[in-house]
Amino acid sequence: MTYRAPVEDYQFIFDHVVGLEQVTGTERFAEATPDLRAAILGEAGRMCEEVLAPLQRAGDLTPARLENGVVRTSPGFAEGYRAIAEGGWVSIAADPAHGGMGLPASLATAVNEMMSGACLSLQLSPLMTQGQIEALEHHASDEIKEVYLPKLVSGDWAGTMNLTEAHAGSDVGALRTKAEPQGDGSYAVTGQKIFISWGDNDITENVCHLVLARLPGAPEGTKGISLFMVPKYIPDEAGNPGQANDLRVVSLEHKLGLHGSPTAVMQFDGARGWLIGEEGGGMKAMFTMMNNARLGVGGQGIGVAEAACQTALAYAEERVQGRSAGPEKAIIGHADVRRMLAEMRADTFAARSIALACAVAIDMAHATGGADWAARAAFLTPIAKAFGTETGMRVAELGVQVHGGMGFIEETGAAQYSRDVRVTAIYEGTNGIQAMDLVGRKLMDGGEAAAAILDEIEAQAEAARAEMPELAEPVWQAAENLREAMEWMLAQGEMTERFAGAVPFLMGFGRVLGAHYHLSAAMAEGEEGKRHRLARFYIRRLLPQSAAYLAHATAGAEGVMALSPDDLR
Amino acid sequence: MTYRAPVEDYQFIFDHVVGLEQVTGTERFAEATPDLRAAILGEAGRMCEEVLAPLQRAGDLTPARLENGVVRTSPGFAEGYRAIAEGGWVSIAADPAHGGMGLPASLATAVNEMMSGACLSLQLSPLMTQGQIEALEHHASDEIKEVYLPKLVSGDWAGTMNLTEAHAGSDVGALRTKAEPQGDGSYAVTGQKIFISWGDNDITENVCHLVLARLPGAPEGTKGISLFMVPKYIPDEAGNPGQANDLRVVSLEHKLGLHGSPTAVMQFDGARGWLIGEEGGGMKAMFTMMNNARLGVGGQGIGVAEAACQTALAYAEERVQGRSAGPEKAIIGHADVRRMLAEMRADTFAARSIALACAVAIDMAHATGGADWAARAAFLTPIAKAFGTETGMRVAELGVQVHGGMGFIEETGAAQYSRDVRVTAIYEGTNGIQAMDLVGRKLMDGGEAAAAILDEIEAQAEAARAEMPELAEPVWQAAENLREAMEWMLAQGEMTERFAGAVPFLMGFGRVLGAHYHLSAAMAEGEEGKRHRLARFYIRRLLPQSAAYLAHATAGAEGVMALSPDDLR
Repeated sequence: MTYRAPVEDYQFIFDHVVGLEQVTGTERFAEATPDLRAAILGEAGRMCEEVLAPLQRAGDLTPARLENGVVRTSPGFAEGYRAIAEGGWVSIAADPAHGGMGLPASLATAVNEMMSGACLSLQLSPLMTQGQIEALEHHASDEIKEVYLPKLVSGDWAGTMNLTEAHAGSDVGALRTKAEPQGDGSYAVTGQKIFISWGDNDITENVCHLVLARLPGAPEGTKGISLFMVPKYIPDEAGNPGQANDLRVVSLEHKLGLHGSPTAVMQFDGARGWLIGEEGGGMKAMFTMMNNARLGVGGQGIGVAEAACQTALAYAEERVQGRSAGPEKAIIGHADVRRMLAEMRADTFAARSIALACAVAIDMAHATGGADWAARAAFLTPIAKAFGTETGMRVAELGVQVHGGMGFIEETGAAQYSRDVRVTAIYEGTNGIQAMDLVGRKLMDGGEAAAAILDEIEAQAEAARAEMPELAEPVWQAAENLREAMEWMLAQGEMTERFAGAVPFLMGFGRVLGAHYHLSAAMAEGEEGKRHRLARFYIRRLLPQSAAYLAHATAGAEGVMALSPDDLR
Repeated sequence: MTYRAPVEDYQFIFDHVVGLEQVTGTERFAEATPDLRAAILGEAGRMCEEVLAPLQRAGDLTPARLENGVVRTSPGFAEGYRAIAEGGWVSIAADPAHGGMGLPASLATAVNEMMSGACLSLQLSPLMTQGQIEALEHHASDEIKEVYLPKLVSGDWAGTMNLTEAHAGSDVGALRTKAEPQGDGSYAVTGQKIFISWGDNDITENVCHLVLARLPGAPEGTKGISLFMVPKYIPDEAGNPGQANDLRVVSLEHKLGLHGSPTAVMQFDGARGWLIGEEGGGMKAMFTMMNNARLGVGGQGIGVAEAACQTALAYAEERVQGRSAGPEKAIIGHADVRRMLAEMRADTFAARSIALACAVAIDMAHATGGADWAARAAFLTPIAKAFGTETGMRVAELGVQVHGGMGFIEETGAAQYSRDVRVTAIYEGTNGIQAMDLVGRKLMDGGEAAAAILDEIEAQAEAARAEMPELAEPVWQAAENLREAMEWMLAQGEMTERFAGAVPFLMGFGRVLGAHYHLSAAMAEGEEGKRHRLARFYIRRLLPQSAAYLAHATAGAEGVMALSPDDLR
């Protein structure tokens, strides 16, 4: 198994599909020249290929384990982590004031994606830290920032998110962990959190837990939640890890995949913590962290999809079986195998373009303060997360299928991709939660952000009509159908009506966006290029799924809720 | 985890959807009265619930292992196997002349499905034996039949299929295992076979390997292949296991799922074997076995889908999270969760009905000798296999999603379903192979068998039009679209044109068939019944996928084969 960082694809998408030049044209990101970008992608890519990819199987075969209360990470993970930290890849987008590179989120998104493709279970740790850095940059006091940010940015310390409790998963507002003020500016945090990714490790000097908890007398629900920094070791006056805090790893989960990532049950027994942001402002601060993480998790799906594409293609070029229809002797000459590989590659491109377009919108919002860009970023985030992770699952599954019987045997690694990526559709808000966010909160602007995207899709299809009518026409038509579906959503006052079709709506939106980016790529490269061949495959064969999704999306809640539990038994 | 045998659903489908009364109306199957049927389903169901289902996790946690050349099966599997054998569930459809029940394949299909749902990895052993029994009944000499069939039928001995070699998987014709005549009517079989399900066990007295091999001087390809019975222990004159044969288990595979089923590399070193059928007739005999097994594997997908439905529903009824839109406090009140459960149940019903319709056609062909029934059975078999297993994968994946974070944790069992079922889309001919069989060999009658099915779908939709127009109309329209797609397939002389869209064509066909059976069920139960509510869900929300599949199916090979390996990199 070898992983090759898809640097050329990022470059092409930046230049010709999502318009990174808008970002680098701003004052804030003027430093991100094409040369710097090439150097970043090249260096990060080399590390992914040479250092991280070889850890992929080791993490699976030798899971992280709990030994006498201490988490022992998988073989080689310490060296892999240090390569990430020393390369500065934890903090591409972090503020230079604390040691970050201050580069666009677009670049960070590409680098995160390639680290995921090389070794997902290890990449999850710096991804969590990145979310923590962003939350602290926005919400922490200067004192906290000075102590924690340089250490997190350098990777000397790692960050985690502690949201979920046994009875409070998607419903974060139900959590019960308590924080009691100690009169010295600190709080005593008590409670149990579950599903804490990289809840501990034996690599970094310290582990910084951001914990959602309730102050005494806080109101019920999400309004009563505050955010606390609860470090494993309490920093001393010099800012070095000091006294051990009153917290511990109770157990690690036995999971379907991602074995190299320790998923912990964390117990806080009056652990000292410090408030981040305002009292009752926990959810707001958490959303800063989560939006970052949601795009990042979408990128995880895409990274695994890329790796699965490469693994399946290599197998299909090498494995000889039956009479091939193409010039190749190997199974890639079989039309059905080629069809699977084409679906994998076309979907990966679509999902990657969506994620990078979302990152560009984030960068533009940061650089320009434009509300339109912020609204676009907010709208695209749940699509990037859910469509990216669905693509990861689907592509990994096709990758197994391309391998035939060998796909079911663990040693090929194809099955591991499908196991590892499965959680990405669940964590950081299940894909159902993403879809409900999309049709609920993200349409609260009356559909303005969505309509702006649809306008662009249609304008581009119209511009392409003369040159590539057989591609442009279906894209324009699909965008029109999508607009109707969006208008149907907006007309539903009752949220349940929207929610019953939320996931199909999101998937239909993703399909259409994917077609738009494929068409952009084809137009940029011209009729003879591979981008045109791939766009033709996607638009003719996969885009028609959007109509099926949107029919489902707009069928309403009655036919769903009419099915009683007994009907479903 | 509890499993409940879906006896009521089988009964309903037999009586109102697939017309089992046609089968029981024949002389051959007149004994299969409603009372006997109820007794069979009830008894087998109880065994599945009480004996097999408790083994499901044990097989996963304690895989079969190879100890000094001997396969040790998972804890409790011996008792489970004996319950299957003693109940007669290996041989429901086997000839009474050798101890079988001689009952319809339709009943065997239902019982096989429920055993799969209870414990897939154990059920695979009797499924293999059933295929072997059928191959011997059709092709073996009387001498072989007398020695082997009573033992296989009773379950005292188990059967395996030895087709695949390292370089000969889907391309069976490439196999190299040799069989040399010994002058005494026996042959010395030498070669290595891989992926042999239940290649050995420590439960049965003997293991009977049916092995494909080449005679000296046999032509290349499939025409040169013959079939041999190669027992682990050579039966003595009394028909009891005697001398150990020259064969051994080299190793067991480390697989994604199905850990309770030992998947062996088998080495034959001049092992004694006996020819089954004619010289060079191996493929013909093998196809008898494979057609049986293909329907059986489709049933495995459906069985796992059923189990996943039940597990997810139980979790959704119990887990409280957030504000529910329905009267229930638990997450089943959320529209998106209900939507997932409805997809799972609606698809399971569709796939089950297709498999049982296929079984009814098999029974009618046996009972009446009618060529039309045989053609229908042959046409439906690849759809039952591939649509059944795709449904298994999709439903198991949705089951994981319904569980949220708990779905990724192995202890819930939801993830095991998705791991176990994955192989069903691969073995007994990958789903790609099934689809190529469908658009190739199974359309060689000029589409006659397919057209007869389409005529029935349309006639039934027309009959339903007055009473249930909102269901009947889309079904009729979808059948028309499918007919056009079939005509497109028939018009392609070049097989690659068909193969490029073979899988989408098969899936589109399955979707339309599923709608037909849902409509039949709704019509049988009437407008107020749960069958109508489920049919409405399926036809309005899932059937539209058929148009997307068929657009893909008929897009031709050029756009697929034009994508070079470099385009896909």
